[in-house]
Amino acid sequence: MQFRCDKDKLAEGLNTALKAVSSRSTLPILQSFLLKSEDQTIKCIGNDLEIGIEATVPAVVEESGMIAVNARMFFEIIRKMPDGEITISSETSTVKIASGRSEFNINAEDSKEFIMLPQVEKNSPLVLSQSLLKKKISQTIFSISLDDNRKVLQGELFDIIDDHLNLVSIDGYRISIQTMKLQAEYPETSVIIPGKTLSEVQKILSAEEEKLVNIYFTDKHVLFEMDQTIVVSRIIEGAFPKYMQMFSEDFKTSVEINRHKLLYSIERAALLARESKKAPVKLEMKDGNLMITSNTELGTVYEELEISQTGDNLVIAFNPRYLVEALKAIEEEVVNLRFTISSNPCIIRPSMNADSQEYKYLILPIRMVN
Amino acid sequence: MQFRCDKDKLAEGLNTALKAVSSRSTLPILQSFLLKSEDQTIKCIGNDLEIGIEATVPAVVEESGMIAVNARMFFEIIRKMPDGEITISSETSTVKIASGRSEFNINAEDSKEFIMLPQVEKNSPLVLSQSLLKKKISQTIFSISLDDNRKVLQGELFDIIDDHLNLVSIDGYRISIQTMKLQAEYPETSVIIPGKTLSEVQKILSAEEEKLVNIYFTDKHVLFEMDQTIVVSRIIEGAFPKYMQMFSEDFKTSVEINRHKLLYSIERAALLARESKKAPVKLEMKDGNLMITSNTELGTVYEELEISQTGDNLVIAFNPRYLVEALKAIEEEVVNLRFTISSNPCIIRPSMNADSQEYKYLILPIRMVN
Repeated sequence: MQFRCDKDKLAEGLNTALKAVSSRSTLPILQSFLLKSEDQTIKCIGNDLEIGIEATVPAVVEESGMIAVNARMFFEIIRKMPDGEITISSETSTVKIASGRSEFNINAEDSKEFIMLPQVEKNSPLVLSQSLLKKKISQTIFSISLDDNRKVLQGELFDIIDDHLNLVSIDGYRISIQTMKLQAEYPETSVIIPGKTLSEVQKILSAEEEKLVNIYFTDKHVLFEMDQTIVVSRIIEGAFPKYMQMFSEDFKTSVEINRHKLLYSIERAALLARESKKAPVKLEMKDGNLMITSNTELGTVYEELEISQTGDNLVIAFNPRYLVEALKAIEEEVVNLRFTISSNPCIIRPSMNADSQEYKYLILPIRMVN
Repeated sequence: MQFRCDKDKLAEGLNTALKAVSSRSTLPILQSFLLKSEDQTIKCIGNDLEIGIEATVPAVVEESGMIAVNARMFFEIIRKMPDGEITISSETSTVKIASGRSEFNINAEDSKEFIMLPQVEKNSPLVLSQSLLKKKISQTIFSISLDDNRKVLQGELFDIIDDHLNLVSIDGYRISIQTMKLQAEYPETSVIIPGKTLSEVQKILSAEEEKLVNIYFTDKHVLFEMDQTIVVSRIIEGAFPKYMQMFSEDFKTSVEINRHKLLYSIERAALLARESKKAPVKLEMKDGNLMITSNTELGTVYEELEISQTGDNLVIAFNPRYLVEALKAIEEEVVNLRFTISSNPCIIRPSMNADSQEYKYLILPIRMVN
């Protein structure tokens, strides 16, 4: 195999594919890239068996073929080569990398041992905006569970109902839902995608508004197709909790509040809780004022905010991290919080005056001792 | 004690003093700040007994006194308070921090237990440019030894001879010297300042050209006085190696070379050495060409550069990290490298055409096996 290409473009493709390369596998081939010529391009492929990434780089292919090389070392070499055109060629057990008056000869792996990406048939795709999906993942990914005993919660549900897609993550203490309107009809689909996959997809998705991503589902896999990059991942099998039932429309207290002011107050109140980890912050809504307090062995904090309140006065306590992460994921200036009683969850939604209803966060309270 | 001040200015002062606070001491008072009123200022003091930092913040002092508080928690609280004026007041065992509708009450430490900074008599100071000293420290600090068995090499020598100051660090394999011309006469002085102290002083020194730092020496301590900040540190006792004798003026090969090209070539040649840590890079100077090669179990690399050479051809090998760190610390575009034989050190200096002779690096070679 022999090809020439631009050093920066190759480095960029390798950097993308590197995200799917095992860093600590005992199997050398899982720490490798496969480079594969196809027409006048080179496919850079990484595959750790959970997730596979294929990045396409334009090249002048002088002799077609395949090469497997240690991924991290190869990427570092390409990244540090002089700018401009680079020539890669392989013989049986070595790969030569040359540019200007620099030349590397490194050992190759056996490309026949490389485990190819699973084949996913590309039928009618789900088409979404890259930038919007990127944002919606970032606004839900933080409440994916890390608990090894609940596999289905280690992923995020992509739930297509009627004309919209819900992204849902649940970690046992809270639920995040973000909704995307679909531009075209798509059959009802419910797929659980691993958190690690979404974390990598999120990085690859472009922030440019007009770009689109095609998503294909099979029984076992999901494939994301973006510009020059394909991500294939296994999906998580099992039944995701029936999240819709958990959002009650009943409420006894509803408050509208400036999101930044609430966020900063809760962050301050949480400062004294850091060392004595589980210290809750207490929220007291009373006649149009919100008092936020925390009381630990390190001291006390008292914060007061004006709110627009309808319904009952209420005292309720939370793990401040859950409130902070939800409030950081929201972009609107004013949010609506709804409560029933102090042992029932709080639901955070867009302000009642907002047009869109595109997100919902549910957070369980902490039972108060006093 | 009670005072009002600007939240940002206080946070800045605390952040500076925090560098001298123990992070993992078992003695709570060593993890504390002392806040001390003095006229219409507050002194924020941290002291871990090796290094002490005092930052001065303008304030409206309503009741003079002293407070000791847990440093990290206090800094975090101040940093997160609403912008604007902040009021701090203390009672016997608590400190109140208030701003707008936010109020903290935290436990205080006993300020009488705080260990005050050592007194340093401020006689005639050594006066230097802050920005220049900042740069000169960064250009020498990397070759301070980390070896616990050679205490004197864990610091950097400040060596005043005639009209200049030499900053010298030696780690057993290399020597870095940077020279600063003095504007005023100063008595001959040789002081070893701990690496940790210089690392903190370097951060505090301003990059603005016109600012000055006053340095005071005693038998046991050194004091740096910058703008609103004082750093006091113990000095290292013992005899520093006679470094001047190690720089021979004899040479058999002298080459002038583009610093960036040499740096990048050596960085590339070092890539194959990473895993098998001690692999040297070999430099071969031959009739106006420099060949850089490295040969490890991972593969081979060959780099070629044009040089301006006078004297003998030579083959010599080095630990690439030492060359890379020296070349990164230099700012000039062209450097001069001098050699005698392959078992003697290389001396890196400014190009022969350069006006200044303000730095010198000496690097020991690695004995070649083949």
